Amino acid sequence: MATSNGSFANAAAGVVGTRGKPIKCKAAVAWAPGEPLVIEEVEVAPPERLEVRVKVLFTSICHTDLSAWKGENELHRKFPRILGHEAAGVVESVGEGVDGLTPGDHIVPIFTGECGECVYCESDKTNLCRTYRVDPLKGTMLSDNGTRFSVVDKSGLRQPVYHFLNTSTFTEYTVLDAACAVKVNQKAPLEKMYLLSCGISTGVGAAWNTANVSAGSTVAVFGLGAVGLAVVEGARLRGAARIIGVDINPKKFTKGKEMGVTDCIDSKTCDKPVHEVIGEMTNGGADYSFECTGFNDVLREAFVSTHDGWGLTVVLGIHATPEMMPLHPMELFDGRRITGCVFGDFKGKSQLPDLVDKCINGEVNINFDAFITHKMPFSDINKAFQLLEEGKSLRCLLSL
Amino acid sequence: MATSNGSFANAAAGVVGTRGKPIKCKAAVAWAPGEPLVIEEVEVAPPERLEVRVKVLFTSICHTDLSAWKGENELHRKFPRILGHEAAGVVESVGEGVDGLTPGDHIVPIFTGECGECVYCESDKTNLCRTYRVDPLKGTMLSDNGTRFSVVDKSGLRQPVYHFLNTSTFTEYTVLDAACAVKVNQKAPLEKMYLLSCGISTGVGAAWNTANVSAGSTVAVFGLGAVGLAVVEGARLRGAARIIGVDINPKKFTKGKEMGVTDCIDSKTCDKPVHEVIGEMTNGGADYSFECTGFNDVLREAFVSTHDGWGLTVVLGIHATPEMMPLHPMELFDGRRITGCVFGDFKGKSQLPDLVDKCINGEVNINFDAFITHKMPFSDINKAFQLLEEGKSLRCLLSL
Repeated sequence: MATSNGSFANAAAGVVGTRGKPIKCKAAVAWAPGEPLVIEEVEVAPPERLEVRVKVLFTSICHTDLSAWKGENELHRKFPRILGHEAAGVVESVGEGVDGLTPGDHIVPIFTGECGECVYCESDKTNLCRTYRVDPLKGTMLSDNGTRFSVVDKSGLRQPVYHFLNTSTFTEYTVLDAACAVKVNQKAPLEKMYLLSCGISTGVGAAWNTANVSAGSTVAVFGLGAVGLAVVEGARLRGAARIIGVDINPKKFTKGKEMGVTDCIDSKTCDKPVHEVIGEMTNGGADYSFECTGFNDVLREAFVSTHDGWGLTVVLGIHATPEMMPLHPMELFDGRRITGCVFGDFKGKSQLPDLVDKCINGEVNINFDAFITHKMPFSDINKAFQLLEEGKSLRCLLSL
Repeated sequence: MATSNGSFANAAAGVVGTRGKPIKCKAAVAWAPGEPLVIEEVEVAPPERLEVRVKVLFTSICHTDLSAWKGENELHRKFPRILGHEAAGVVESVGEGVDGLTPGDHIVPIFTGECGECVYCESDKTNLCRTYRVDPLKGTMLSDNGTRFSVVDKSGLRQPVYHFLNTSTFTEYTVLDAACAVKVNQKAPLEKMYLLSCGISTGVGAAWNTANVSAGSTVAVFGLGAVGLAVVEGARLRGAARIIGVDINPKKFTKGKEMGVTDCIDSKTCDKPVHEVIGEMTNGGADYSFECTGFNDVLREAFVSTHDGWGLTVVLGIHATPEMMPLHPMELFDGRRITGCVFGDFKGKSQLPDLVDKCINGEVNINFDAFITHKMPFSDINKAFQLLEEGKSLRCLLSL
């Protein structure tokens, strides 16, 4: 992989003078559900204890941002808010007690942090930190339950702007818990590495860490959005013999095939349930299936599409409705398993730096470029939202 | 463990003359749901290709027999039938093509067989054989879809008697697929080893093979019947630090404590949900939980009683109602996992002989005796059913 020249270290140039002071900058503020984001001048307070302030250089939009923007999930209804969680940037300043991060460091924010000290961080079985795990309810910083963003509203009053998913990256500067900022190699191209903030880590990690896809195996991916394609990428890199892509939108198959999908199933035109189609194609079912849509009926199809005896289904989609899983307890006796996956079961701070190094030195060949279907300036963020909502983009790289 | 003197080899003495001929013997026939079994003279046909005829020496009753006897599950309604699946005996004769089993061999029947040749048997991820896996629908033998048992009914007509769970052990002689007969060391005491046919293998194997319980871990067992106590036994042998037993019948706790339960929870007298009690006792939840009751609300409690991040719930109970699992897909994102388990994930023919050897030479110290709470002659089988139904026995050893 080509590496950048490390000149981003200078991207925070001149910020020496800003340390300890508020920074005024542009941010895309979500004022109300579904209303276009407004580029506002916000004030970003200095980082408090165990926090870092980061100049965001690249960001993009994921379906979780879209859903929070629409206010689809009651838990997400906190406005005004700065959304965004997939990004890369440079540390501008650090708060008290921060170890291992200094101004100028290149970082990738992670929405599910790693304190490194709790019983979860010390376990090798989970990447869910006790303190900094992903929490869609949370809109403030931990230390003082306050926000680091403020904006002057229409009535001329300064009011707090809520944080989002431990990250809030739709802004020129953001404040993160140090536990949610992963320092990466200065040589790594941040305009690609930002994808490790969410989509690629989640999908590739689901294939590598959660499912441990083996060479020669058969994989079925339900939903060929960015996360689904990242699963495809992970499965391809592991040497899966067959990667079956399932979607209701046949336009997704072109990209899917480019990225390693060997067989495409348009579930809307099937004359029988998808699991029967896959069962016939694979002589009994896939070894692994990945549910990347958030629909319960798809979850069921994904589950029964795996081979009995050893099939494993990994759930990645956000299931926002209250319906329970449409699986009967006795179905577990057929030897199929199901598991969830957050952030690809990567421990962000411990494991991503090594992954980045391997991407740079060519040991791991993740096709970052394939995910970036559009590029535009940050100021066009509403256009980027539109593209994603219409299913026309995978990732739109927004440069700040 | 004390070993028997191997004299059972003679138990089938005199049967040389019976090879290839029908045998008339006593069997406990279930004529109709819930009606007392009737000890009848049945005729047991010689084994067909890939089958063996076995003289049953010891058997006992498990809840699956109870449920089938009552006809609780529509799938089980096949009468007249010879129930029973936990037993030990001696091979009387073998059919054509049988390898590795000869008259006089000591065997333990298994309800989920192992052909050794199918894609499942060749996989190290499952013990579900394609051909001989447990099937409650099946009441006949594979080769000719016929039965090997017949009986003269009240009207004087000879009619077929259905098989049960690949085994049918409530009879002096039975016919098994060779794939469902595990040859064990002649020195092993069959009056104990018969427990490996079902209960002990299922529970101990769930702890060892399915959950892979680690030393020092915390285990919660829901339901302290024979299978639950076998889980306790497996967890104890693995060095679990804490074994929490949950039941609605406090009488079960005496035995539970004898066998290694460290903490007892009477869920009927709890003033809060059991998972909260366990969460407080364990500082966050058990590492493993085992659902051994077949009730959906218990399944949910077992699931949420485990520690988020890494908790694993193993479902062992038979869930006979059509209700789906009361779990939400998003709950999988808390890192708890759930899996089913059939026969303790033991591959019967491949793995049980070695386990038996280890039990004999003292490498493994399964407390078989603790499970046998009653002993009586086979002719008292209805009394044994009664004891189990009233929750007064774990296993009643019936000698034929």
